[in-house]
Amino acid sequence: MGKARLEAFSDGVIAIIITIMVLELKVPHGDSLQELAPLVPVFLSYVLSFLYVGIYWNNHHHMLHAARTVNGGVLWANLHLLFWLSLFPFATGWMGENHFTAVPSALYGVVLLMAAIAYWILQQAIIRAEGNASVLQRAVGRDLKGKLSPLFYIAAILSTLWTPWVSEALYVAVALLWLVPDRRIETLIGHERPQ
Amino acid sequence: MGKARLEAFSDGVIAIIITIMVLELKVPHGDSLQELAPLVPVFLSYVLSFLYVGIYWNNHHHMLHAARTVNGGVLWANLHLLFWLSLFPFATGWMGENHFTAVPSALYGVVLLMAAIAYWILQQAIIRAEGNASVLQRAVGRDLKGKLSPLFYIAAILSTLWTPWVSEALYVAVALLWLVPDRRIETLIGHERPQ
Amino acid sequence: MGKARLEAFSDGVIAIIITIMVLELKVPHGDSLQELAPLVPVFLSYVLSFLYVGIYWNNHHHMLHAARTVNGGVLWANLHLLFWLSLFPFATGWMGENHFTAVPSALYGVVLLMAAIAYWILQQAIIRAEGNASVLQRAVGRDLKGKLSPLFYIAAILSTLWTPWVSEALYVAVALLWLVPDRRIETLIGHERPQ
Amino acid sequence: MGKARLEAFSDGVIAIIITIMVLELKVPHGDSLQELAPLVPVFLSYVLSFLYVGIYWNNHHHMLHAARTVNGGVLWANLHLLFWLSLFPFATGWMGENHFTAVPSALYGVVLLMAAIAYWILQQAIIRAEGNASVLQRAVGRDLKGKLSPLFYIAAILSTLWTPWVSEALYVAVALLWLVPDRRIETLIGHERPQ
Repeated sequence: MGKARLEAFSDGVIAIIITIMVLELKVPHGDSLQELAPLVPVFLSYVLSFLYVGIYWNNHHHMLHAARTVNGGVLWANLHLLFWLSLFPFATGWMGENHFTAVPSALYGVVLLMAAIAYWILQQAIIRAEGNASVLQRAVGRDLKGKLSPLFYIAAILSTLWTPWVSEALYVAVALLWLVPDRRIETLIGHERPQ
Repeated sequence: MGKARLEAFSDGVIAIIITIMVLELKVPHGDSLQELAPLVPVFLSYVLSFLYVGIYWNNHHHMLHAARTVNGGVLWANLHLLFWLSLFPFATGWMGENHFTAVPSALYGVVLLMAAIAYWILQQAIIRAEGNASVLQRAVGRDLKGKLSPLFYIAAILSTLWTPWVSEALYVAVALLWLVPDRRIETLIGHERPQ
Repeated sequence: MGKARLEAFSDGVIAIIITIMVLELKVPHGDSLQELAPLVPVFLSYVLSFLYVGIYWNNHHHMLHAARTVNGGVLWANLHLLFWLSLFPFATGWMGENHFTAVPSALYGVVLLMAAIAYWILQQAIIRAEGNASVLQRAVGRDLKGKLSPLFYIAAILSTLWTPWVSEALYVAVALLWLVPDRRIETLIGHERPQ
Repeated sequence: MGKARLEAFSDGVIAIIITIMVLELKVPHGDSLQELAPLVPVFLSYVLSFLYVGIYWNNHHHMLHAARTVNGGVLWANLHLLFWLSLFPFATGWMGENHFTAVPSALYGVVLLMAAIAYWILQQAIIRAEGNASVLQRAVGRDLKGKLSPLFYIAAILSTLWTPWVSEALYVAVALLWLVPDRRIETLIGHERPQ
């Protein structure tokens, strides 16, 4: 019930989040190439967050494709995920405008961590709604990436106490880890639904 | 006729409303943790409004799922609801930036009240379009929550004359009341459409 | 071909237009009731434009419901309509912030006029794509409202040379004229498609 | 798998991009006609970018209509295209506010070039996913316009070293070249799917 509308609403919110992040790239007043220099860190943080939101959309897409039942708990777990994703533009803008200093980099990690936890809660809510026969349950399996990412985020948040560049490196590393598409679900669905 | 497009349009508007509210969380210029302190009330008002818009989306979803006919009156009643929801970002931002003082808290209550009335009008428009056999009519039943909420909002608006904190407490209480998902409609549809 | 995606894209654009108009209602810095006074004309122009965009969405909805074929010409005629609608936030904000003075009121009329012409072009493009058997052609009939509105807009634009209040009255009058839902198309489709 | 949701998400992002570009048209404070004069170049750059985004939506629509398979590679190639399109509002605003001077005009060309390359990559990703029987492959054919456009953009970028007006003329010329709808795909699909 209502899976299509849940996907459509999530797509709408994610599409807006990914697009309004670009509004942090404020149009400079002068017209020389130097005007763009202070925007470079803002641009880099935009690229990183675009990747993350893209990964979330991609995985969300696969997860809901595998889901068969949507109940009230799933709707709210989904809104909870969208809430943390909606803080990406703020965290991205703050980190970019301050050239990746410690506190904004830590806050960015906190938002990433909360979104990862919210994604896991949504995954569990779908699996619980489906019971033992859940395709998603078998597709997710041990869910190594899903369990490792929060540890990386925590390491990144802590490393801002020492140097924020380690945390940036960790954020990029986790993004690259996820860029490898989540073929697990695709594969299993291929087996389940041969058409 | 046209129910799918009505849902899609509403989803689009609600998705944008819920997302642009976050733009009131302006990126601060400094990079220390203290910079975030003045944003705390803005953040809290954002969380509250995110909950409210999420509740509206959720209930709207259930209500239209139960609806079978959409006519011109329903289209306009729906636009009327979206109008009041579109004022959430303004009311939320004003209340948050002024740290929940009296007048902005009262205005927030007025917008909540008008949205609740608009929701009730939409519900009636759908029931009227469907006639006696309306699934929604039976699903809604006595509609206790729908009738109590406006009274709470009015109490909250009046209490700002005394102290705004009572009104904030009432806004949170009504949100929690609605967070319990509207299983009435789900249940009845389960009986009506056994598939 | 592609009618569903044309509707979805138009809904998306119209949903964003109707929502970003509210961003012109800037959150004031103080927290007293007087702070809202200068926002009253901005709010009134927002209400008027919300009505107009709502009417366009409504009629667009009915028109495309009656359409059966979508070709390249229709796609571009539709984008042309969306272009003029996208100028509503600017024209609305300028008129509201300047308290309905002459030049902004005239510009508002120009945008309304161009949108009306674009709507008529889109209607013709659909009818041409469908040929003699066009349901839309018969549904539209003499299209009295469609032909009168541009004349009203022109009268309103000219009247700003004398006093802008006549033009505001005309804008409100045309909106009320259209608020009566376009039952012509609904009725004919009822005859054509008895299911 | 998932083609509908890919289209819906892309439509959402493109709808937001095309609409937030208009936010660069800042509402002026005065109410005389002269206030609009400095906005003319901003408006012209908006019209040009509206055309380009419209062309991308149109062609994207046709391309995905011809596509039959969507895999992970296609999803990411699509996000890559959306990334470059998301930079249109920034590049458009910078060029418009600086009255088409050299560096902003060159940057605008760079964004156009990257979007064209991203579109080509997406096209290849779909064709690769479909194998030899790809309808899109045959529809695209020699793809003259797709191969010429990047050359025009490169010429336009280089010409800003001499005079930016040549580059503006080239941007307009390429837009007009594409405004002729991509009937190649439409025609071939007509042959393939006679219904």
